[in-house]
Amino acid sequence: MTAKIAILGASGYTGAELVRLIATHPGMEIAALSGNSKAGMEMAQVFPHLRHLDLPRLTTIEEMSFDGIDLVFCALPHATSQAVISELPRTLKIVDLSADFRLRDPADYEKWYGKPHAAVEMQKEAVYGLTEFYRDDIAGARLVAGTGCNAATGQYALRPLIEAGVIDLDRIVIDLKAAVSGAGRSLKENLLHAELSEGAHGYSVGGVHRHLGEFDQEFSAIAGRPVQVQFTPHLIPANRGILATVYVDGEADAVHAALADRYASEEFILVLPQGEHPSIRHIRGSNYCHIGVVADRIAGRSIVIATLDNLAKGSSGQALQNANLMLGLDEGEGLRLAPVFP
Amino acid sequence: MTAKIAILGASGYTGAELVRLIATHPGMEIAALSGNSKAGMEMAQVFPHLRHLDLPRLTTIEEMSFDGIDLVFCALPHATSQAVISELPRTLKIVDLSADFRLRDPADYEKWYGKPHAAVEMQKEAVYGLTEFYRDDIAGARLVAGTGCNAATGQYALRPLIEAGVIDLDRIVIDLKAAVSGAGRSLKENLLHAELSEGAHGYSVGGVHRHLGEFDQEFSAIAGRPVQVQFTPHLIPANRGILATVYVDGEADAVHAALADRYASEEFILVLPQGEHPSIRHIRGSNYCHIGVVADRIAGRSIVIATLDNLAKGSSGQALQNANLMLGLDEGEGLRLAPVFP
Amino acid sequence: MTAKIAILGASGYTGAELVRLIATHPGMEIAALSGNSKAGMEMAQVFPHLRHLDLPRLTTIEEMSFDGIDLVFCALPHATSQAVISELPRTLKIVDLSADFRLRDPADYEKWYGKPHAAVEMQKEAVYGLTEFYRDDIAGARLVAGTGCNAATGQYALRPLIEAGVIDLDRIVIDLKAAVSGAGRSLKENLLHAELSEGAHGYSVGGVHRHLGEFDQEFSAIAGRPVQVQFTPHLIPANRGILATVYVDGEADAVHAALADRYASEEFILVLPQGEHPSIRHIRGSNYCHIGVVADRIAGRSIVIATLDNLAKGSSGQALQNANLMLGLDEGEGLRLAPVFP
Amino acid sequence: MTAKIAILGASGYTGAELVRLIATHPGMEIAALSGNSKAGMEMAQVFPHLRHLDLPRLTTIEEMSFDGIDLVFCALPHATSQAVISELPRTLKIVDLSADFRLRDPADYEKWYGKPHAAVEMQKEAVYGLTEFYRDDIAGARLVAGTGCNAATGQYALRPLIEAGVIDLDRIVIDLKAAVSGAGRSLKENLLHAELSEGAHGYSVGGVHRHLGEFDQEFSAIAGRPVQVQFTPHLIPANRGILATVYVDGEADAVHAALADRYASEEFILVLPQGEHPSIRHIRGSNYCHIGVVADRIAGRSIVIATLDNLAKGSSGQALQNANLMLGLDEGEGLRLAPVFP
Repeated sequence: MTAKIAILGASGYTGAELVRLIATHPGMEIAALSGNSKAGMEMAQVFPHLRHLDLPRLTTIEEMSFDGIDLVFCALPHATSQAVISELPRTLKIVDLSADFRLRDPADYEKWYGKPHAAVEMQKEAVYGLTEFYRDDIAGARLVAGTGCNAATGQYALRPLIEAGVIDLDRIVIDLKAAVSGAGRSLKENLLHAELSEGAHGYSVGGVHRHLGEFDQEFSAIAGRPVQVQFTPHLIPANRGILATVYVDGEADAVHAALADRYASEEFILVLPQGEHPSIRHIRGSNYCHIGVVADRIAGRSIVIATLDNLAKGSSGQALQNANLMLGLDEGEGLRLAPVFP
Repeated sequence: MTAKIAILGASGYTGAELVRLIATHPGMEIAALSGNSKAGMEMAQVFPHLRHLDLPRLTTIEEMSFDGIDLVFCALPHATSQAVISELPRTLKIVDLSADFRLRDPADYEKWYGKPHAAVEMQKEAVYGLTEFYRDDIAGARLVAGTGCNAATGQYALRPLIEAGVIDLDRIVIDLKAAVSGAGRSLKENLLHAELSEGAHGYSVGGVHRHLGEFDQEFSAIAGRPVQVQFTPHLIPANRGILATVYVDGEADAVHAALADRYASEEFILVLPQGEHPSIRHIRGSNYCHIGVVADRIAGRSIVIATLDNLAKGSSGQALQNANLMLGLDEGEGLRLAPVFP
Repeated sequence: MTAKIAILGASGYTGAELVRLIATHPGMEIAALSGNSKAGMEMAQVFPHLRHLDLPRLTTIEEMSFDGIDLVFCALPHATSQAVISELPRTLKIVDLSADFRLRDPADYEKWYGKPHAAVEMQKEAVYGLTEFYRDDIAGARLVAGTGCNAATGQYALRPLIEAGVIDLDRIVIDLKAAVSGAGRSLKENLLHAELSEGAHGYSVGGVHRHLGEFDQEFSAIAGRPVQVQFTPHLIPANRGILATVYVDGEADAVHAALADRYASEEFILVLPQGEHPSIRHIRGSNYCHIGVVADRIAGRSIVIATLDNLAKGSSGQALQNANLMLGLDEGEGLRLAPVFP
Repeated sequence: MTAKIAILGASGYTGAELVRLIATHPGMEIAALSGNSKAGMEMAQVFPHLRHLDLPRLTTIEEMSFDGIDLVFCALPHATSQAVISELPRTLKIVDLSADFRLRDPADYEKWYGKPHAAVEMQKEAVYGLTEFYRDDIAGARLVAGTGCNAATGQYALRPLIEAGVIDLDRIVIDLKAAVSGAGRSLKENLLHAELSEGAHGYSVGGVHRHLGEFDQEFSAIAGRPVQVQFTPHLIPANRGILATVYVDGEADAVHAALADRYASEEFILVLPQGEHPSIRHIRGSNYCHIGVVADRIAGRSIVIATLDNLAKGSSGQALQNANLMLGLDEGEGLRLAPVFP
């Protein structure tokens, strides 16, 4: 049996990345694609790298029929997503890639996104999509909320340390370097090649980035008490990849052991030998996350460095991994592509 | 049945690219890897992006056993290749990625490579590896000589035009823009990031690039008389991809028709609608070649633009495609990965 | 005496480049800056790299007083420029960086820019701003029309060859590689870092780029008969610089001699020893143009490669050089900054 | 009077940068250039971007005459520098750009550089070259030791805070992003474009980078007790620039005030309005350092972000600024070039 898939918002980078990954998936078939501003166009016009594929033409969401569709990926902008999803047939399984269903508490949503949530009932139902930590819930879910790409990277580095109690919860600094595709295909001056190339700068400095809502929610839940981290993302002149340098108060041996133990049986999370650390160039285009631990010269402090591809493991790869679970398929199907290097 | 594969020279970029592609190939198993300067190391140390794969350790060629090996990919440097290949068991099928067996006439080899060929008998036996034009010979060959990556790009644009007789053979200009991975992992000052980034320059200007030996050989054979093209490659600040802008004296309608007809049933060569032209960013990491034709404002002249990934379709992808043919497998197996964009 | 300068359109890249260059000019003072969409802002907000300078606040053009101003640089978009300039006081000297006054024949303007010229009288008065070829006219002009940056590069390579009669006028191909800042600070999808980085593609392929209007006008005037070149620009992933690879039918010795003779006493046009050719990374940020000549292997054909910085020698540097002439100052003042490498 | 200058090690990036800057300096004349491995070559062959300058040919150090030389810039590799400098005539003023004379305590030198210092007497004499903090000593010095480029960036952010006592000395994290030219023109695999482009990775992670010797020496001296910071540098795909993100326990108001006060009269250190933070793209090619302060959401913590050009303010620009002081010239002469953007 082949699962029939629809992708809403296929004209953005995460939508295109879903198409790229699903194209090699033997158990899925792309049956419908929407892209409201590009409705009526062929995908080959919007994304010429997909020219070799036989794909349905882009339509509006309104034109799309969901008959026979098994699962919908919703790669729409934040806020749009909740409006669209609340109108979809209740029979559909849905993986949402937006921020709309990540925060369980409507007050948190309003705090970080600046307005009340418009689909509070569905928000309750949504399962947080960090696969390795919510696997069972995801397998039984109707609606899965994909995590933020920065939020995923930081959590892969930190969750096992909080679970294992090996670090000081009040002294966590996440300094993150993000490639530009995470900002999407939006037309902003600071995303122009002439501005970003040969540049590097912080953004949302000072603890105002929205993915902090996810860190707060998740880390506090694990710790059983409020946890607040420092988190400063930076934009670097690369297309894909996130590198999170995480400063913790904790012994490197214990930190490394906690990570190595936790991920020992995880296919896509690779913990490097202690003392080694990863580079974003080695995960590009793949669903793999590499994590390294190095002891600092100051006794009792460690540096954890985690990297993943924001479009793959950070969003569309994660979404496909979750969809595989929801459909009862091999969790890693379509996701075992090696990184493209150089 | 799974074919057992050995890769000689697995510590270079084309070797690593072979590993990446074969990793998704259900009918092949990598049984041995050599890398003389890195012998004894794990591939994960040499190429951390392959860390997730279970691969044999790198050995020297001398240490390698060829028992049970069905096919060898030889990704060694030019000149080294002919010495090694002439010592391999005669029972092995071999795909050579070096320049050593591309030129059929030993005098041509000596002219372009500066010294006599050391394995002239094998040179006679070798089949030129441009799959779409030597498919039947390749299927029956023991030794296939992979083409130059620039040579492949130019030939995809021009061979059908020469075959169809729609262009002036004495007025062909190939202006080529090549990404840097084509130069390999060699330590040269002009390949440093600080030198190349924000740069762009011609190299081998004036008709001295060695791939001209392939153009001369192939185009003259098709035309039945000597053909010499102008060919100027340029290095651009990108990692993968070749874009060849080819100036021809010929009507765009006829030029486009000749290409569209010739490649109509080719899976990996895609001719764009007339008037459109391709970009290297849309073929990165894939085995696809995109070709476009635009009429010039000067009547009777056309511009043909062809692009492919130098490491994939230009070398390792081509090599795998040929290996599939030689082993009687589905020609496109392991090669249908969509390009990675952005 | 210090000349008082106004810059219209200071919120774009060429405007900012003028400020950068004039900041080191001892004989000029920036007295007024306009930037309609950013009026009221400090330049440090629009261009933080100019933060250290004491500059006037941006105003609208309407708010700007021209009392005491000696010369105006007009760095406005095409079409806007002619409307604004025709309203400026007749006493002002003006250097226009737009395309509005480059073509002497109103019919040519309409052909290439798609609508009738709105200031035909001023168009007649304008002097074409290719300094080394219109120096005397520029020194006495009231209105100088800056050339296109691609048009300048191609002309530096070709004018002396046409003047000297050493090439076939019907076999000229200009294959040009342009960095992205030439497209300005406009918000277009194909100028995004994620699209352009790791990319390379032709644009205006087939002889439809507007700078062909300048080539046609100038080359035909020199030759005394119509001359049409082939011209294909490509966008490459770099910020500054143009590299033009020009294919001509002509002997390399004669071609090199014509260039070397013509530019022997030019401070900013450097002809390399025959057989060498330049790179864009060696002219970045400077007013220098490097030109090389290499003989092709095909007898009687040569390759001329010219490079310059599109924002400096290709527009704002040229504009300042012309302004120096118009104001009776040292022609090279403010323009002798060495290129920034790496 | 024009000071006669010699540059030892002019074939490296910092040597070339000195030439670029001094070329615009009215009070200095470059009289001699050495570059042992390139001795006998013209600078235009080694650095074509300097082709327009009339420069002495490169010689060996042994061939160089120091008669009439007023000041020597020594841009040699670490360890080589101390051997060469101890043989130079005692009458010369010397600005050393290597690490050899940065650490006052020979034991510290041996600890960080792995072998005993070979010129201990001269080490005592050397003045640490962070201009804004050692100005008077530098003006009277015979030998000035240029600082590390990373060390300069971190110190500009932190020295005023330690002096003012507004931060916790035991909770300082410096997460630094460095462009690749800081690694010099050395041939290393990880500096190749194909490796670094689209990459980003930490190096010397865990408190083992040699510039920590400078941080320890300077911060401890200011504080009057041992201070150890955490410092993790990262390599990013850019050519020039360092961005240091510094995490401190301290109130943003006090932190900003301490920086703004300290640098109020410094020409080259610009403190942004509180809440703003800088980008490396805005200081490229210049001697300016931009510093910003943002309060973290966690009360009592702040983020300080400092950026400068590693080749300019971080090494050669600093060296020229110090040379101006040593020669009694205007401190900022030759250094007021605006950054090149984009």
